[in-house]
Amino acid sequence: MPRATSNPKASTRTRAATAGAAPVRHLLGLQGMDAGTLRTLLALGRDAPPSGDDLSGRTVANLFFEDSTRTRTSFSVAAQRLGADVVDLLGGVSSVSKGETLIDTARNVEAMGVAALVVRARQAGSAAMIARSVGVPVINAGDGKHEHPTQGLLDVLTLAEAFGRADEFDLRGLRVGIVGDVASSRVARSALAAITALGGEVTLIGPPTLVPRSFEALGARVAHALDDVLPEMDALMMLRIQFERHGAGNPPPAGAPAKSAAIASVREYRAFYALTPERADRMKRGGIVMHPGPINRGIELDEAVADGPRSVILRQVAAGVRVRMGVLRWCVGRA
Amino acid sequence: MPRATSNPKASTRTRAATAGAAPVRHLLGLQGMDAGTLRTLLALGRDAPPSGDDLSGRTVANLFFEDSTRTRTSFSVAAQRLGADVVDLLGGVSSVSKGETLIDTARNVEAMGVAALVVRARQAGSAAMIARSVGVPVINAGDGKHEHPTQGLLDVLTLAEAFGRADEFDLRGLRVGIVGDVASSRVARSALAAITALGGEVTLIGPPTLVPRSFEALGARVAHALDDVLPEMDALMMLRIQFERHGAGNPPPAGAPAKSAAIASVREYRAFYALTPERADRMKRGGIVMHPGPINRGIELDEAVADGPRSVILRQVAAGVRVRMGVLRWCVGRA
Amino acid sequence: MPRATSNPKASTRTRAATAGAAPVRHLLGLQGMDAGTLRTLLALGRDAPPSGDDLSGRTVANLFFEDSTRTRTSFSVAAQRLGADVVDLLGGVSSVSKGETLIDTARNVEAMGVAALVVRARQAGSAAMIARSVGVPVINAGDGKHEHPTQGLLDVLTLAEAFGRADEFDLRGLRVGIVGDVASSRVARSALAAITALGGEVTLIGPPTLVPRSFEALGARVAHALDDVLPEMDALMMLRIQFERHGAGNPPPAGAPAKSAAIASVREYRAFYALTPERADRMKRGGIVMHPGPINRGIELDEAVADGPRSVILRQVAAGVRVRMGVLRWCVGRA
Repeated sequence: MPRATSNPKASTRTRAATAGAAPVRHLLGLQGMDAGTLRTLLALGRDAPPSGDDLSGRTVANLFFEDSTRTRTSFSVAAQRLGADVVDLLGGVSSVSKGETLIDTARNVEAMGVAALVVRARQAGSAAMIARSVGVPVINAGDGKHEHPTQGLLDVLTLAEAFGRADEFDLRGLRVGIVGDVASSRVARSALAAITALGGEVTLIGPPTLVPRSFEALGARVAHALDDVLPEMDALMMLRIQFERHGAGNPPPAGAPAKSAAIASVREYRAFYALTPERADRMKRGGIVMHPGPINRGIELDEAVADGPRSVILRQVAAGVRVRMGVLRWCVGRA
Repeated sequence: MPRATSNPKASTRTRAATAGAAPVRHLLGLQGMDAGTLRTLLALGRDAPPSGDDLSGRTVANLFFEDSTRTRTSFSVAAQRLGADVVDLLGGVSSVSKGETLIDTARNVEAMGVAALVVRARQAGSAAMIARSVGVPVINAGDGKHEHPTQGLLDVLTLAEAFGRADEFDLRGLRVGIVGDVASSRVARSALAAITALGGEVTLIGPPTLVPRSFEALGARVAHALDDVLPEMDALMMLRIQFERHGAGNPPPAGAPAKSAAIASVREYRAFYALTPERADRMKRGGIVMHPGPINRGIELDEAVADGPRSVILRQVAAGVRVRMGVLRWCVGRA
Repeated sequence: MPRATSNPKASTRTRAATAGAAPVRHLLGLQGMDAGTLRTLLALGRDAPPSGDDLSGRTVANLFFEDSTRTRTSFSVAAQRLGADVVDLLGGVSSVSKGETLIDTARNVEAMGVAALVVRARQAGSAAMIARSVGVPVINAGDGKHEHPTQGLLDVLTLAEAFGRADEFDLRGLRVGIVGDVASSRVARSALAAITALGGEVTLIGPPTLVPRSFEALGARVAHALDDVLPEMDALMMLRIQFERHGAGNPPPAGAPAKSAAIASVREYRAFYALTPERADRMKRGGIVMHPGPINRGIELDEAVADGPRSVILRQVAAGVRVRMGVLRWCVGRA
């Protein structure tokens, strides 16, 4: 493989390849991450200052091959708060030789001297593929249905702060239900990995088409009846039905036939899995409602619950900036 | 209304809701604004320094649901000159549940910790709707045909400086003609409100389809014959015919049939309302020509006039950055 | 011409027009540039510091009427490293009255107080046209098939550093082959001008449809057989076939019929002009391979060569940021 040669002429990766140098710190996923590293990252998010200059004079590049305005903005705000400059490289890639384009673009941007690459892409494994090709930290901002590690971290930070567990991030005894389109969800995978690694219990809830029994292999409990398990949950994380990943673009109006092979109709889905005010009333005292956004209001989550007293959804958004500051300091500033 | 509850968990609006705290300063429109506040804002624009650090370490978010490169760039330059970082959230919203999307996006960005939201949207009232939902200042950068308050302020600042009225912003005795597609124009509405509040006289000029008599209720004089009133005007503010708001995209070439129900043809419109060099020659000595841009050259305004000695069009653009610096300092820095 | 009047009201160009003031320094092209100025610019690139504050408090505007993510990002990184803020104005222009739109946009952005305009456009001469209309430095970031001067400078800087000629930028005795779609290439024109002005010898290589004999008038040697001249070249600069400029959008897969009137098929093109590992092996000891990017891997350049020991492609990218820092300091900071 020509890419593996450590040729001082052609490569800027020599910094990383230098004998004795610390290996580059990427954040590619939470699956398999040890509890100690998780706690380090969470503590950096918890303790993120309003602003700083850890990355002053450095540039962070957002490589978003798939659009995500909110996630990109959150990373931009986090980087700027640490004093970094930000450059955005947006837009899809042609269907031919996708891999090459991702890698070429990443290596080009690396050669411009950026301090980190924040990568979002439609294909699972994209961030890892790029990480193998460059010598600067790569932060996975979502790769297909695989992982979205900063989302998982912000979920745990929000959860831990809501239940007074943010000193040690020990989640033992906490029961979290993740409800809905788990099969399509990188968010679910990342959150599941982090919560269970820290001792929490995760129940994945939804119809068998969206929550297959095979998820038990990842350490989760699987349930198909929300109403049965709802009263024992400390937190419910509601997921958006990703119609676009089922071969349809936009959610149909409630009651209309769903454009998805995985659910019969939005009306039927709502009957069993939507978090309505009535269902929210049956939650534990102190139980919280989470959502990674954007919400399909009136489908998986009702207005009154999204904006009601149990909702910590905007606290998740705020935690997102702090977590991303922490991750940038850990990857780039080696905090 | 769940949104009105002051729930410390779900809301970041507690800062604003805290008893005794100063209310949030939005800039949503100029209609109904008292002369004192207008003068404060204008003076802040007049005295804007080349650069400063009033907003150092703060983030200003451009939420542009409708594209406007020039206005967005002007706000970005203004914010950066005050030391702020800028994040752009661009792009339209789907036709379903627009209101929810606007509000959700705004509340999300607020939760990321931004200091102000600059909002541009296609629907009148969008900025006000968002302002009711967030606890940070909202600056209206144009909402449908309703208002574009920073444009109105820059028009008045340019006018006042051109006529030596920028010490007190007393416009008594000044006569301003606003010519053209007044019915579609938020610029006209904002400018009219500000000029008349400061004592100036506004004449709205155009065919009855574009300048209905009902505008007299807003304190303006209405005229249908430009040539009759032109010699008495100190300033003519030429408006672009907004073909896209009449159900057609681009201006047809001069002489071609207009794609608009409101005017018979571009040729006929030009015959009565275009500011040609011949008409400009008939203006008062010292009379000035304004335009909010972008100009349809050769339709409402001729090249030689746009670039001629009466034109203050580029001074309007420069005043725009200063006014926006002033508005940001007033809203965010509470200057 | 109304634009030529030095009217203090309408123009912000008076700074430039003031008697005795130094003329504005644009960078529009390398054709016709004297060797002394070339050496000054190259030395500024060579000596560019990792970061600086030469442009602190200044704004650089990217006016990209034609998309080019990589070039724009490189300019952004360069400007930010000098402490400047950056604003991006992107997007095409309508087919009607293009010239007016380019100039109007540029003069508007100038009036906002930016320190320099970086201009990319589809039409040859666009940057020069804008430079005649504004009073701030204009840097040509590519105009049609005409020039791409910062690319030419980064090519020479990379070349000079690779061969130990970066002290004086004396390229006498160096032989550079530019291979491929020369006719469509602004990169080739800029590089040719700079290399020959500094004493290097350029051979343009390709089929007669892409490399017409008329290029000899620009001081180049023209060759149609790569295999004949390859062994004598110190550097080969491979060009992408610009199918989109031949009336087709994307490159067809290797072997498929080319959608171009200029070449018979990609397979035939590759047989004669692709830089394969076999051809690379026949290059001089120490000979280098360059490419302005993006690469059509497997068409003009093979994977193993692009990533192999002769490749300086990523060093070109890194040199690009340094050269652009130098150009910005020269134009704006008058270094």
